[in-house]
Amino acid sequence: MSSMETLSVALGERSYDIIVGGDLISKAGQLIAPLIAHEPVIIVTDDNVAGYHLGSLQGSLKAAGIASTVITLPAGENTKGYDGFQNLLTEILDNSPERRSTLIALGGGVIGDITGFAASVILRGIDFIQIPTTLLAQVDSSVGGKTGINTQHGKNLVGSFYQPRLVLADIGSLNTLPRRELLAGYAEVTKYGLLGDKVFFEWLEKNGEALIDGSDTLRQQAVIKSCHAKAAIVGRDEKETGDRALLNLGHTFGHALEAETGFSAKLLHGEAVAIGMMMAFDLSAQIGLCPIEDTTRVGTHLKAVGLPVQPTDIVDQKWDRVALLGHMAQDKKVRDGKITFILTRGIGEAFITSDVDISDVEALLDKAIAA
Amino acid sequence: MSSMETLSVALGERSYDIIVGGDLISKAGQLIAPLIAHEPVIIVTDDNVAGYHLGSLQGSLKAAGIASTVITLPAGENTKGYDGFQNLLTEILDNSPERRSTLIALGGGVIGDITGFAASVILRGIDFIQIPTTLLAQVDSSVGGKTGINTQHGKNLVGSFYQPRLVLADIGSLNTLPRRELLAGYAEVTKYGLLGDKVFFEWLEKNGEALIDGSDTLRQQAVIKSCHAKAAIVGRDEKETGDRALLNLGHTFGHALEAETGFSAKLLHGEAVAIGMMMAFDLSAQIGLCPIEDTTRVGTHLKAVGLPVQPTDIVDQKWDRVALLGHMAQDKKVRDGKITFILTRGIGEAFITSDVDISDVEALLDKAIAA
Repeated sequence: MSSMETLSVALGERSYDIIVGGDLISKAGQLIAPLIAHEPVIIVTDDNVAGYHLGSLQGSLKAAGIASTVITLPAGENTKGYDGFQNLLTEILDNSPERRSTLIALGGGVIGDITGFAASVILRGIDFIQIPTTLLAQVDSSVGGKTGINTQHGKNLVGSFYQPRLVLADIGSLNTLPRRELLAGYAEVTKYGLLGDKVFFEWLEKNGEALIDGSDTLRQQAVIKSCHAKAAIVGRDEKETGDRALLNLGHTFGHALEAETGFSAKLLHGEAVAIGMMMAFDLSAQIGLCPIEDTTRVGTHLKAVGLPVQPTDIVDQKWDRVALLGHMAQDKKVRDGKITFILTRGIGEAFITSDVDISDVEALLDKAIAA
Repeated sequence: MSSMETLSVALGERSYDIIVGGDLISKAGQLIAPLIAHEPVIIVTDDNVAGYHLGSLQGSLKAAGIASTVITLPAGENTKGYDGFQNLLTEILDNSPERRSTLIALGGGVIGDITGFAASVILRGIDFIQIPTTLLAQVDSSVGGKTGINTQHGKNLVGSFYQPRLVLADIGSLNTLPRRELLAGYAEVTKYGLLGDKVFFEWLEKNGEALIDGSDTLRQQAVIKSCHAKAAIVGRDEKETGDRALLNLGHTFGHALEAETGFSAKLLHGEAVAIGMMMAFDLSAQIGLCPIEDTTRVGTHLKAVGLPVQPTDIVDQKWDRVALLGHMAQDKKVRDGKITFILTRGIGEAFITSDVDISDVEALLDKAIAA
């Protein structure tokens, strides 16, 4: 597959392109070259991704005449805390960066989030470029400029809105992903259909399994569709004062589940989102907003591709209603103490509300964790 | 003195007012109230400033019906490192802030810089208000949105551009300052005359000593003039891609001197700026850019008010040319390895250049540290 598509995230002087294509890492040098004002560029990656893609990226940069240096972090969510962040800043500063220096984030969401945050604060802001190598990062975390790290209080409570100069989504890199991670990313793809595009959800019902099983063409179509959806919302509401919260469909519940499993490999973020979206649909049906048929249909598709749909799908985990509610009350979207929910009137018809009766939420949680 | 003047920093949707007046802390509640969307507001101060002004501020907020909570940090530059920053973030998060929460920075430059940086990253950005209580903070660090912390690599190498919602410069608070700190702030006041306003410098020659000795009226005039000058430059160039670098007159040399004294009480920032400005004028005269009369006149005024004008004015300190040059090469304003200098064609005629022969700088340093 050699096609390459470019879409723009329209944010005034912070606008940038997302290029989606089949073999982009090996072409990165020529695509990036026009944006490089100062060398060496600093590649930030993890010790897992480095094995797959670092040689190709560095070779491509070198062929384009761009000198690069590399910072390799330990793979995994633990890297994304204060210590990991301070270590990354120190390593970057060891390279004597200038204001026109560029960081390249090569990896999944953790690498993208921590590198973007570092770029936003080093010398009060230097350039960065995202090369997301997971489906989750390609369709979600690399688009829209949310960066951040985790603290003892929760995930991404410290960070910034900071846009990359360019995103290169190499569909070929998805072939190096374990199936479980690919599925987790697929949950976020599904989200774009569920929140605002029923036709896309229907396309996924038809093509989702072939996409997951390995079709580069279908994957590219899904990534482009997802990035378009996200870019449109972010273009309307960069700093999440309104509409952008729609992208959190499934995330309020999902984050609470992740917090209870200690943000461990027991429950991947995308898996938590899948369960969370199901809970949002269930809650919407329970209070009479959403037809039960739509809820059933969502569950059928998520199960068909192999995603979990309820908390009890996670083995060896006890759930507690009070603990889950406690996590939900700490969400960044809490306003005047009220939890913001993304509910829905059906597939493709999500909306934002903080007007949910807590007893309804409690009933939903009880049902979800009983099963 | 009860007059109050308001000036605006014009930065589009990030515009804000600076209010300068005689007794503003005790009126802060009513001035701040229209901006508060969520309570409690979180006051960040240090254990020195708290003793002078915290009671008045909290009383004023309370009288205006605004609930507040306080985070008190140790006074001094050491607070402004990674550890102090992480501790501050933790204390803020302990208060369960929301996106519409407000931080109030009550103190000098350290408190303003670290609080502004915290505000820029907590939940990816919450509001903050500056109440600068030192002359240096009133005329410099609280205007223009530069925030930051220090690292082992240097001062303010990690931070953000993040504008406050409001600045309250209480001239009365300057009466609690030790004379040495007042003088250090006065060096930055002088800078505005030297870099672009000869008439203001002449006013300072006439009024500087009375201002330092205690005239609230003169102080208020000088703070307003300085804030106007800075706001105009920042309005033209918020992120320092051009003109804003003029504000660094004296700072490239000054930072190197501070680095050599370990950023200790041995040499305050404003004192370093005074010496640095003198060195910039000397270098300008040495290479034939600036009339020697102007250089002499600058030195005469700085000495008259009691500021140091050469490195050898600092007792018990050995200086080394190579070490100083090394610090200068690490400056944030280095571009393609070339040091940016702010030089001058005379009083009020500073300009930016990176076209300085290193041998001229070496000769200047040799002369400056010999004496």
